[in-house]
Amino acid sequence: MTAPWITYRPELKVLDCTVRDGGLINDHLFDDALVKAVYDTCVEAGIDYMEIGYKASKKLFAPAKHGAWKFCDEDDLRRIVGDNPSSLKLSAMADAEKTDYHEDILPKKDSVLDVIRVATYVHQLPVAVDMIKDAADKGYEVTCNIMAISIVQDAEIDQALEVLREAPCSTVCVVDSFGSLYGEQIARLVERYKKALEGTGKEIGIHAHNNQQLAFANTIEAIVHGANRIDATAMGMGRGAGNCPMELLIGFLRNPAYRVRPIYQLLQDQMIGLREKHEWGALIPYNITGQLNQHPRSAIGILESEEKQDYVGFYDRLVADL
Amino acid sequence: MTAPWITYRPELKVLDCTVRDGGLINDHLFDDALVKAVYDTCVEAGIDYMEIGYKASKKLFAPAKHGAWKFCDEDDLRRIVGDNPSSLKLSAMADAEKTDYHEDILPKKDSVLDVIRVATYVHQLPVAVDMIKDAADKGYEVTCNIMAISIVQDAEIDQALEVLREAPCSTVCVVDSFGSLYGEQIARLVERYKKALEGTGKEIGIHAHNNQQLAFANTIEAIVHGANRIDATAMGMGRGAGNCPMELLIGFLRNPAYRVRPIYQLLQDQMIGLREKHEWGALIPYNITGQLNQHPRSAIGILESEEKQDYVGFYDRLVADL
Repeated sequence: MTAPWITYRPELKVLDCTVRDGGLINDHLFDDALVKAVYDTCVEAGIDYMEIGYKASKKLFAPAKHGAWKFCDEDDLRRIVGDNPSSLKLSAMADAEKTDYHEDILPKKDSVLDVIRVATYVHQLPVAVDMIKDAADKGYEVTCNIMAISIVQDAEIDQALEVLREAPCSTVCVVDSFGSLYGEQIARLVERYKKALEGTGKEIGIHAHNNQQLAFANTIEAIVHGANRIDATAMGMGRGAGNCPMELLIGFLRNPAYRVRPIYQLLQDQMIGLREKHEWGALIPYNITGQLNQHPRSAIGILESEEKQDYVGFYDRLVADL
Repeated sequence: MTAPWITYRPELKVLDCTVRDGGLINDHLFDDALVKAVYDTCVEAGIDYMEIGYKASKKLFAPAKHGAWKFCDEDDLRRIVGDNPSSLKLSAMADAEKTDYHEDILPKKDSVLDVIRVATYVHQLPVAVDMIKDAADKGYEVTCNIMAISIVQDAEIDQALEVLREAPCSTVCVVDSFGSLYGEQIARLVERYKKALEGTGKEIGIHAHNNQQLAFANTIEAIVHGANRIDATAMGMGRGAGNCPMELLIGFLRNPAYRVRPIYQLLQDQMIGLREKHEWGALIPYNITGQLNQHPRSAIGILESEEKQDYVGFYDRLVADL
């Protein structure tokens, strides 16, 4: 009868990706005040990493239609964080095939960013590995998120992990993009990643989505099985159903280095207002796509339409299309 | 590498308690149309039990201030279900010390009810056992819910289970009234109940609350550890943060006897409208009481007040009072 959650693991690190993943809801058109508030909250709460946005290609994504956090230009970053005189590390995500990484990711010595997180679908892995090497050569801490893992076969996961063993990334993250995985599946994936990366010193991360109201539970499950790099967002803000809520995660961790009170302050000062403008959370259409192990785009579509409350019609269409 | 959720357990039974637990939000003042819709949905969805309300004392609870489902008089029941010409079993909850059970619970032969669920705090167990015997003698299937188990010490749980071994109840239900338990704790409780009741043929039940967005995950955890009597509600409606959502549970179970489509119909026809009038779900104040392992009454209070969005003030007051 052990009670491991009474203790804590000091080597476990938390990453806030409110602005990065949450920005997928509003095209990253956040006020500077929101971004600054998230930054200040991360510092006050003792959070380890803040992912402030993407390094997206300006050829693929029109700067006029997106906020600064889609691109994370150095001037924009420094307008919020200055030279980042804190122990909080700053991260940007770089999507495979959507990033002009050779040009847009500066040498570390010229950037306030500390970490580049390369996100990739499994079929893009060769590109991702080149991006990982590029960012590592430039002096960054680099991690790799293999997305949509719930539709990847075990043999492919194993091959991807074999390649990543040799790549200069410090963490490989289990990403449940569709919010479709149950705790037992998360546990098996974390164990699979651990075994494949054994002896490399690489850490396992977890990035959960809340389509089935399981983001927090699955994050705990990953932690129990050894994941040490944990993603969460304020009020769970993130694309579609959103992510693991930071306020719940910090309460669970019981690490005295973290403080939950500044997060509640952020929620009442900033996130309530944001949620009045943008909808996210485990809404019924996301339950349905999650349970069917599908990308949430159809649910996002229905929620923006007149039929947003026609759950049966939506369910029938998805089942008919299976 | 087994995948047990691909299969299903035919002996697992589902109980809908939307009207019973949800009624704690609106003093059970439901329209007949809602109660009939829940009943019809349970029948169509293949759900095993519907808990339609309480058998509360009319001396303690003024009938003028409560809906019919606080009392479940026979005439009211039959107005909705007739003689219940279906395989759905009907249940009413009887709270220890809040039920005039000798008078108000009719002999089974005179009632359309099939099950009496006796709910008790651990200190009320002697009363509960008398109620269990009374209902069993009257011909009902009887179960026992030990409430607020997260604040009961193991030794007391063991003593309660020892008493219940000998009582004529078919199920003993793990009840996380405060929504404070994590999956590992749920697993330990289910294992503890199983061991204590071994050889009696009694089943273990689970009744989760969603204060930390863990109701569905904890319900799954209980199922994995052998719980076979599962409570859920439409759209998770229930006191405070609510319960395990039926639509998620049925999707998870994969038992072909259950159908999820009628539940989506109920959500869009009835539950959306109800939620526009009444607030439930894993709101931030419920996160806070859940993480502090406290009764949700303070969160219910703050949510009915002008300070409903002052999360920090609420958190500070609770922590100061610890």
